[in-house]
Amino acid sequence: MDPILLTPGPLTTSADTRSAMLVDWGSWDGAFNALTASVCGDLLAIVNAQRDHACVPLQGSGTFSVEAALGTLVPRNGKVLVPDNGSYCKRIVRIMGYLGREVVVLPHGEQEPADPARIEAALTADAAITHVAQVHCETGTGILNPLPEIAAIVEKHGRGLIIDAMSSYGAIPIDARTLRFDALIAASGKCLEGVPGMGFVIARRAALEGSGGNSCSLAMDLLDQWQYMQKTGQWRFTPPTHVLAALRTAIDQYQAQGGQAARLARYSENCAALVSGMRALGFETFLPDALQAPIIVTFHSPPDPAYNFSDFYRRVRDRGFILYPGKLTAVDTFRVGCIGAIGPDTLKKAVTAIADVLGDMGVRRVARG
Amino acid sequence: MDPILLTPGPLTTSADTRSAMLVDWGSWDGAFNALTASVCGDLLAIVNAQRDHACVPLQGSGTFSVEAALGTLVPRNGKVLVPDNGSYCKRIVRIMGYLGREVVVLPHGEQEPADPARIEAALTADAAITHVAQVHCETGTGILNPLPEIAAIVEKHGRGLIIDAMSSYGAIPIDARTLRFDALIAASGKCLEGVPGMGFVIARRAALEGSGGNSCSLAMDLLDQWQYMQKTGQWRFTPPTHVLAALRTAIDQYQAQGGQAARLARYSENCAALVSGMRALGFETFLPDALQAPIIVTFHSPPDPAYNFSDFYRRVRDRGFILYPGKLTAVDTFRVGCIGAIGPDTLKKAVTAIADVLGDMGVRRVARG
Repeated sequence: MDPILLTPGPLTTSADTRSAMLVDWGSWDGAFNALTASVCGDLLAIVNAQRDHACVPLQGSGTFSVEAALGTLVPRNGKVLVPDNGSYCKRIVRIMGYLGREVVVLPHGEQEPADPARIEAALTADAAITHVAQVHCETGTGILNPLPEIAAIVEKHGRGLIIDAMSSYGAIPIDARTLRFDALIAASGKCLEGVPGMGFVIARRAALEGSGGNSCSLAMDLLDQWQYMQKTGQWRFTPPTHVLAALRTAIDQYQAQGGQAARLARYSENCAALVSGMRALGFETFLPDALQAPIIVTFHSPPDPAYNFSDFYRRVRDRGFILYPGKLTAVDTFRVGCIGAIGPDTLKKAVTAIADVLGDMGVRRVARG
Repeated sequence: MDPILLTPGPLTTSADTRSAMLVDWGSWDGAFNALTASVCGDLLAIVNAQRDHACVPLQGSGTFSVEAALGTLVPRNGKVLVPDNGSYCKRIVRIMGYLGREVVVLPHGEQEPADPARIEAALTADAAITHVAQVHCETGTGILNPLPEIAAIVEKHGRGLIIDAMSSYGAIPIDARTLRFDALIAASGKCLEGVPGMGFVIARRAALEGSGGNSCSLAMDLLDQWQYMQKTGQWRFTPPTHVLAALRTAIDQYQAQGGQAARLARYSENCAALVSGMRALGFETFLPDALQAPIIVTFHSPPDPAYNFSDFYRRVRDRGFILYPGKLTAVDTFRVGCIGAIGPDTLKKAVTAIADVLGDMGVRRVARG
């Protein structure tokens, strides 16, 4: 049996989703155009976005869509505030450097949620800041940032908000009727439980329509992609047809299972089963429960000299579960994803496998204290 | 039954290739890293590239890889000559405009292969030209450009050559031992008969290593992608895992079937069956046979008032074959692809379907004369 992916995308998908890739689609064909339109319509509906927003799908990984949103929606003389509490925030800063656009970093600790008061102070202090780029759930640690509070402040100050909702979209509530943003970015292979290969940007139409001339990249010019799609129903360049077909099927299942509320409930059960099981083994979570999104959990590595991650990883993999390495430089950690077409029973089995592996490795000290 | 795609990618793939997508892969896992390494090794070997070259895979459509190669390998103060005989040449010019780098267009007719003598004259006249960007098989018409002659001239003048081999790689011979280039670009879903979702660049190592600081895009910085992959065996950002698995399986079949020579032989048979069958119905090819690559064929539309493409397309589709629209502005044409996991029998059946449709539509005048 193939191992279960306890990783934050690619993740374990359902057999139905994978089977949707057994058909070849013509990228110019009306049936495929209808598939694209139906997926985009549903991606808008999931966050209650309607006439004021547009959904622009884009080839590539989620990071391609993040860069496309920044490069298309931030003017060349724009200035972007990045509240930084993890590696995906740092990636945004790196993208801005490549794009040659000004950036102001607001450093936070990795266990500290982005602070609305500090964001407000930064916006008040610097009228040249045009946009705030905010990661919703920072996958580097698993921390959930207070998006509604941040969005309210950014709106109050009349700046644009660009949200990296890669690992939250579809699971954590986001309501475009009450939360103002210029762009909300996610991808096929995360909480919608599709396969990786495309991202999408839910853009505020007025912001998108005013973005002409901003992009320094043809491939990642969201305005050009959107205008072409409006005119022809087609993607500008060859779409990942099988990935889109899988996403269509994954969204069908998402809707049939009860949408965002049901997905959040299942992931929360997964997370609770994982954390309580791991704590019973002595593991400590990097984050306090109040800051933990039910998407991916960072655990401290056991301090026992018999432990090393690569051996641990390999042995857990042999028992059918693929873990994820830590992404923190200062602390030795590893991560376990709670998302994908899996339920709490799977997480419980993973905890059992981890317990067995600790025994096999002779790891006795698991807690740091 | 699903329709056969007579389109230049996405195309009809084999059942084995599609079935390879039924497995979820962890993008950090050693087994997936081995998959990436084996695909890259084979992509180099197909063009006899060895230690002097590197294969850099990239998420997205083939155009993303074309832009990435231009953006990474052409310095910011570089100047690129584009011999233009079709829509994919014009796309390169458009990319260069976005990248803000200087370009010199060498206009050709769409029925005229890129002219080595004119390229040589342009290089002689303008010492500031650093690179030539050459489309190998121009998919807009189906014309084959004389790549070896052009490469020899570019090498003689000490300039860099960037080849868009999107629809030729794997079918038309390209030998990296005798043909010097800085970058050769293709994608998963063309003559290798994988599914769409990733491209790749075979880069001359010295050119790639010297490209630091050129790219204006993090996502499309081939040097950064390559260095990270060298160090970790992994893609920098989430790879299209299922697309790569399908490509691995497609390359296995490519090799088992006899590699490039066998693929060219099959496509040539496909093309011959198509063209002779269509000519028997009165259709005229846009290109003379001597210039026609066996990849995609452009036909003049019938002059009969009873003909219109959208009706023709729909009726041929109902009989199981998906055609491709023309891409020429001055002449009314349509295109039929010869590539994909299909043989000459399929093309013969497509011609029969087209004959039936002409009858149903009451199209009597097919030839223009």
